[in-house]
Amino acid sequence: MADDKALTPRSEDFSAWYNEVVLRAELADYSPVRGSMVIRPWGYAIWENMQRALDDMFKATGHENAYFPLLIPMSFIEREKEHVEGFKPELAVVTHAGGKELEEHLVIRPTSETVIYSMYAKWVQSYRDLPVLMNQWANVMRWELRTRLFLRTSEFLWQEGHTAHATEAEAEEETLLILDIYRRFMEEWIAMPPVTGLKSESERFAGAVRTYGLEAMMQDRKALQAGTSHMLGQNFSRQFGLTFQSEEGQEEYAWNTSWGVSTRLIGGLVMSHGDDRGIVVPPKLAPAQVVMLPIFRSDDDREAVFGACNRVAGALSEAGVRVRLDDRTHLSPGARFWEWERKGVPFRVEIGPKDLEKGQVVVARRVHGEGEDRKMFLPESEAIGRMPGLLDELQAHLLETARTRRERDSVRGGVESVEALGEALDDGAGFVYTGWSGDPAVEERVKEVTKATLRVIPSEEFRSGSAPERCLGGEPSKMEVVWARAY
Amino acid sequence: MADDKALTPRSEDFSAWYNEVVLRAELADYSPVRGSMVIRPWGYAIWENMQRALDDMFKATGHENAYFPLLIPMSFIEREKEHVEGFKPELAVVTHAGGKELEEHLVIRPTSETVIYSMYAKWVQSYRDLPVLMNQWANVMRWELRTRLFLRTSEFLWQEGHTAHATEAEAEEETLLILDIYRRFMEEWIAMPPVTGLKSESERFAGAVRTYGLEAMMQDRKALQAGTSHMLGQNFSRQFGLTFQSEEGQEEYAWNTSWGVSTRLIGGLVMSHGDDRGIVVPPKLAPAQVVMLPIFRSDDDREAVFGACNRVAGALSEAGVRVRLDDRTHLSPGARFWEWERKGVPFRVEIGPKDLEKGQVVVARRVHGEGEDRKMFLPESEAIGRMPGLLDELQAHLLETARTRRERDSVRGGVESVEALGEALDDGAGFVYTGWSGDPAVEERVKEVTKATLRVIPSEEFRSGSAPERCLGGEPSKMEVVWARAY
Repeated sequence: MADDKALTPRSEDFSAWYNEVVLRAELADYSPVRGSMVIRPWGYAIWENMQRALDDMFKATGHENAYFPLLIPMSFIEREKEHVEGFKPELAVVTHAGGKELEEHLVIRPTSETVIYSMYAKWVQSYRDLPVLMNQWANVMRWELRTRLFLRTSEFLWQEGHTAHATEAEAEEETLLILDIYRRFMEEWIAMPPVTGLKSESERFAGAVRTYGLEAMMQDRKALQAGTSHMLGQNFSRQFGLTFQSEEGQEEYAWNTSWGVSTRLIGGLVMSHGDDRGIVVPPKLAPAQVVMLPIFRSDDDREAVFGACNRVAGALSEAGVRVRLDDRTHLSPGARFWEWERKGVPFRVEIGPKDLEKGQVVVARRVHGEGEDRKMFLPESEAIGRMPGLLDELQAHLLETARTRRERDSVRGGVESVEALGEALDDGAGFVYTGWSGDPAVEERVKEVTKATLRVIPSEEFRSGSAPERCLGGEPSKMEVVWARAY
Repeated sequence: MADDKALTPRSEDFSAWYNEVVLRAELADYSPVRGSMVIRPWGYAIWENMQRALDDMFKATGHENAYFPLLIPMSFIEREKEHVEGFKPELAVVTHAGGKELEEHLVIRPTSETVIYSMYAKWVQSYRDLPVLMNQWANVMRWELRTRLFLRTSEFLWQEGHTAHATEAEAEEETLLILDIYRRFMEEWIAMPPVTGLKSESERFAGAVRTYGLEAMMQDRKALQAGTSHMLGQNFSRQFGLTFQSEEGQEEYAWNTSWGVSTRLIGGLVMSHGDDRGIVVPPKLAPAQVVMLPIFRSDDDREAVFGACNRVAGALSEAGVRVRLDDRTHLSPGARFWEWERKGVPFRVEIGPKDLEKGQVVVARRVHGEGEDRKMFLPESEAIGRMPGLLDELQAHLLETARTRRERDSVRGGVESVEALGEALDDGAGFVYTGWSGDPAVEERVKEVTKATLRVIPSEEFRSGSAPERCLGGEPSKMEVVWARAY
């Protein structure tokens, strides 16, 4: 696993860099089944940390976890018209089981609205049974021909929340609550600050009334749709008979929302913070925040060095730091150094015989700001005492860096035609804010000419100070929108 | 959801009781797809607590989580001869995806040995890369025609561990380590003490060299196979080219183990502890260990009662107790009482205006031992202070009760023919310990005559004091074995 070969630099070929770094950080690997991936322990541990954090946020806002079936009858998928149009081309179909052809073919869930609302219809009778606030952590399948690890695979892991409410207003409130949870999670945990907003009609979820999205800017300035929250209206409740008796005694259809984020977030993490040495994992998500590296040549040194490493590891662990001791003495210090650089562990603490003599330990930063030293030589107790603060500082630094980069690479104002948009993007713009008339024909033309798409109609906090007057198509503008080339 | 209709008593029809109690405790529900189930929030929260506890035990012994693909090429399943014979009749097959027929059909994993060892073959080069100790939490599919919620469904949730080792001895050690982790988990968390041991050849996992199993006795005296740990030898490593260079520089095949427990454990929990009022959840696994029930008639009382409930709930929570406040004032106290009885919450704390006057709270036990009062009237501070101890006592009581029941319903010695075994079982024996010659023909005949199967060749600690001399077939006995009718 020791692998000192340099990565393709990001500046040379970002896409090649991404594929290499995902493999060499041992986040994931290609599987024997085309389009599926294997998530390796380092990648899965990051996912577990994401899950834990999000799950806590969902539960703190009254959501419960449940589990619904993997297989969905084809007739269910077909019931909501837009839904089936959107998903049919991507379905994987089980035609045979138990040695026989099935009477009705079953699809592997591409998303679970249909089966979940059919169950809610069974459980909900009265307004007193509402709201229903459930989430499931599950695998889903959307057949893809052109796949990329984490970003686009046929099978992926995600959470999907599904709620039912008595009123439209409550459903809208839920949709926005989740949008806010996602935004906070991406900022506070992944240090990946998204721009949030409404999706245009052409980009919304198949079956939704409104889709809100979170768009993060990667280092190559492309947008990554990092999560979505859908207001489904009564589209599914009508198809699945999800009704309730209102407080006034009337039979009414419930209002639904659904929302999800997936293992794609790991791809976002990689493309937000990685550098030419490897990935960088934000401290709050790092499976190991500190790696202890004992360094010695002779067996005489070994005991003293290991003793010090164990002592420091124990003290860090007691201070709430996730620490791992790398005791693979068959690997050279250099090989181990490179492995943890690739894997993006925030800090290494190295201890060798000379350090013991000097009464110090070496604290090496995975990321150092300008003017910061890569290595710090600190007395043991100081290294231990400062570590929680160093981790917090790094977490904040990564967020600040990503936010600064996002705004640096955003163009607000001055782009007033499709051609000008293309030029701005070719000149290195990431997110371009312009006016829009609301006409889908403009979206079509932008796509053809520039390969960019309308990412969001930004939420108020992300809008530019002065509203643009003109749409790219020349008409008067009705709203400000964000364009970008996207993953 | 208020549902005061009594359950079918266990003594009358255990099977009907089981189906009713699973539905009415809202653990699970039938889904629109035949053979699949929906795990509802109360059931899923129990599963999450099981997962957390087991996952901690796996990680404490050096295992890491990963995730492997849902779909497996048919040719992979077919590679290990016994494996395909065992699983082929139960496969669900994806023949079409992305709108086309697939060149090679894919099966939904019934278990993941094949795809996982094909990946290990890619990752392992040298003895230094061993052992590989991975686990995944996943859904699997084994097509079933006769299904029962949690006990036998086409799709179920489980964990599957897969390890690779340099030597046979290490693999055997791992198999037994996991067997021990499972036993401890079932005893300490589910309060469901299993008998452990080796499976006979006819009952072992398709592709294994040796299968160890854990058999728990349900209240109807039937055995539930609650978990298995397999020593796979080199069967899979040979088929998938999982080799490594040994310390001596030779190319060798790795030794594998695999092991799993599933949501079936929830069925075991239900059938171990449930009574005619509902399920009983052991405190360590209970999503809520205490439910607070405010009781009042007038709005005047409301504030004082809620104030006291919130105060007690806060204090219990600080003491590390999982507590839930049931504030559904539209339901009568009786309806809420029955709901929590059904759902098996260990303790209720009820507070009404009269209790406030008397300076007391009512602590009601879900389960009370002989001579114990169902309700205790305690000063608030005493109720809070004693609660952690009460939960521990209940946990211990459930284990002790289950162990006593298991041994009471086990017959050791004196059964020396197939006919006598049938009579013992008909007379109410659960586990019957007898001698066995090792001849599979005896197993066949036992099954035909008595419907019982050989559950395990018990581990030393479960063997009877004196070894039986005769096999049920009349031959000299080679080992002691346990027979039971099983789920």
